[in-house]
Amino acid sequence: MRGIAVGIDVGGTNLRGALISSDGKILKRRSVPSEANKGMEFVVKNLLRLIRDMVGNKEVAGIGIGIAGIIDQKKGVLTQAPNIANVRNYPIRKALIEQIGTGIPVFLENDANCAALGENWVGSGRESSSLVVLTLGTGVGGGIIVGGKLWRGEDGMAGEIGHITVDPDGPRCNCGNYGCLESFSSASALRRRIKEVLGGKDIEASVRQRFTRVSEHRIPEVLRELALKGDKLALSLWDEFGRALGIAIASLVNLLNVDMIVIGGGLSNAWELFIKSAIRESRKRALRAPIRRVRIEKSVLGSDAGIFGAGYLVFEGCNGQNSQ
Amino acid sequence: MRGIAVGIDVGGTNLRGALISSDGKILKRRSVPSEANKGMEFVVKNLLRLIRDMVGNKEVAGIGIGIAGIIDQKKGVLTQAPNIANVRNYPIRKALIEQIGTGIPVFLENDANCAALGENWVGSGRESSSLVVLTLGTGVGGGIIVGGKLWRGEDGMAGEIGHITVDPDGPRCNCGNYGCLESFSSASALRRRIKEVLGGKDIEASVRQRFTRVSEHRIPEVLRELALKGDKLALSLWDEFGRALGIAIASLVNLLNVDMIVIGGGLSNAWELFIKSAIRESRKRALRAPIRRVRIEKSVLGSDAGIFGAGYLVFEGCNGQNSQ
Repeated sequence: MRGIAVGIDVGGTNLRGALISSDGKILKRRSVPSEANKGMEFVVKNLLRLIRDMVGNKEVAGIGIGIAGIIDQKKGVLTQAPNIANVRNYPIRKALIEQIGTGIPVFLENDANCAALGENWVGSGRESSSLVVLTLGTGVGGGIIVGGKLWRGEDGMAGEIGHITVDPDGPRCNCGNYGCLESFSSASALRRRIKEVLGGKDIEASVRQRFTRVSEHRIPEVLRELALKGDKLALSLWDEFGRALGIAIASLVNLLNVDMIVIGGGLSNAWELFIKSAIRESRKRALRAPIRRVRIEKSVLGSDAGIFGAGYLVFEGCNGQNSQ
Repeated sequence: MRGIAVGIDVGGTNLRGALISSDGKILKRRSVPSEANKGMEFVVKNLLRLIRDMVGNKEVAGIGIGIAGIIDQKKGVLTQAPNIANVRNYPIRKALIEQIGTGIPVFLENDANCAALGENWVGSGRESSSLVVLTLGTGVGGGIIVGGKLWRGEDGMAGEIGHITVDPDGPRCNCGNYGCLESFSSASALRRRIKEVLGGKDIEASVRQRFTRVSEHRIPEVLRELALKGDKLALSLWDEFGRALGIAIASLVNLLNVDMIVIGGGLSNAWELFIKSAIRESRKRALRAPIRRVRIEKSVLGSDAGIFGAGYLVFEGCNGQNSQ
């Protein structure tokens, strides 16, 4: 299959898109605000603007879109989306196809699954026929590829690696469960830990001072900077972060015996601060053959993994090789 | 594909075999001692005896064999087998093909994977395109089917569900890790718990008395009988057993979003004693859509699941539809 695909990553803040060739090259990039806080109509309006701006008079094979949320593939409906206001069963494929009006096919996929497809196509996992991609950000997302195919699950919900229990008596997670991976190894977990530390009685004044003027969303970045300077508290928090990640990795490799684990998402920029404790913990816990087999690598595509994966949906779909 | 397959389950005590038709009917059964404690040569000798006895002059499409252990599918080599003395890289396929001498193909598979194939073919999961089979016995085994295919993993080691961490600070497991599912929800875990209870200082004389003449391997069965009579200690141990199982089930459904979980193995005969706490715990912990979706059922094939799965290997292999 030759041609050009449009790949778009729908984020809570921006829509990031690219024209992608069938051999995995980005030909053109565009980004517009998503206005996701205003609701789905605004997101669709901005998507159309982005698509028209990128495509112009060119002929494209299709449009692939990655969105954080639950997608009903058969119906082309966005069932839920945590970052977009008031979404419930929105028929996004139909809305886009009608308004684009040129008969270009539209493909939808969960953003973490797109990251997995992207990594498998042109990223860290391109040599691999089985891999798990973990995206570490506000939450923890994941995508699973086995036998060369994305496993979407019966409801498109497979790969919720953030909600593996790593400690049944751990902190409450956003999902309502206790001790999920996400409650240890995410930006929201780091924010909670800093609140806990600052709320403690024995806290040194100097520690409190470091965080007094830091806005909440910057906490992970500040913790990274402090740790790189050798700050003990920050180093110990990244160590905790890595340890929980290692427990989850051990369970993943024992369960799936995959070739590769790719770690992406915004927090993968703190790779050197958590990966040692993650690998130490996973080696301690996993069975010998599968942990020897698996390569654990940082995403080379970074935040572009989702865009590439969205583009891949088009080539995959056009080839008639729909994943499971 | 028509014809008859030989399906054999290689156990530590017995070799259990059957002739199976391509529509999943058992036509004939045989069982011989495995003499696994004497080593692989004895097992092979007994396998040949069993096969000759069952096959006679009949024409069979092939022989499928399920064994607890690690199997190198490509080479037809049994890499490791916990229940057979001194096995290391034994070329079992070659040995059998040479000694049978009629050119009948031989297929090998891990026993828990065979159970999964059997359940998917003619058992509880026959309507299902994605299922996880858990076998609860001395240890905990597992097999994973997604998109209608067995996922064997890169080294044939996928499905080691017994070695998912359910509590990082839990008891030491046979694998060396701490707090694996197997360290809570297996016969060996029940035996350890009874030892712990009897070693306690506050233990009542009546409790101690109940277990004084019980040989170790009968402990799970005695605990089942006591629990069915309402014994509080026994009921609480099965409750613990179920709770850990529920934590693992929640992680499994969040990760794989499968249609079905089938629970087999010898301890599934205590189903009514652990399943309530398992389901309660998994509902508390899993995401809504995947836990609503999944059916959790007791194996209808019981100890025959592995034999059926071994037979299925033959039909699957002859159809050229080798699994991933």
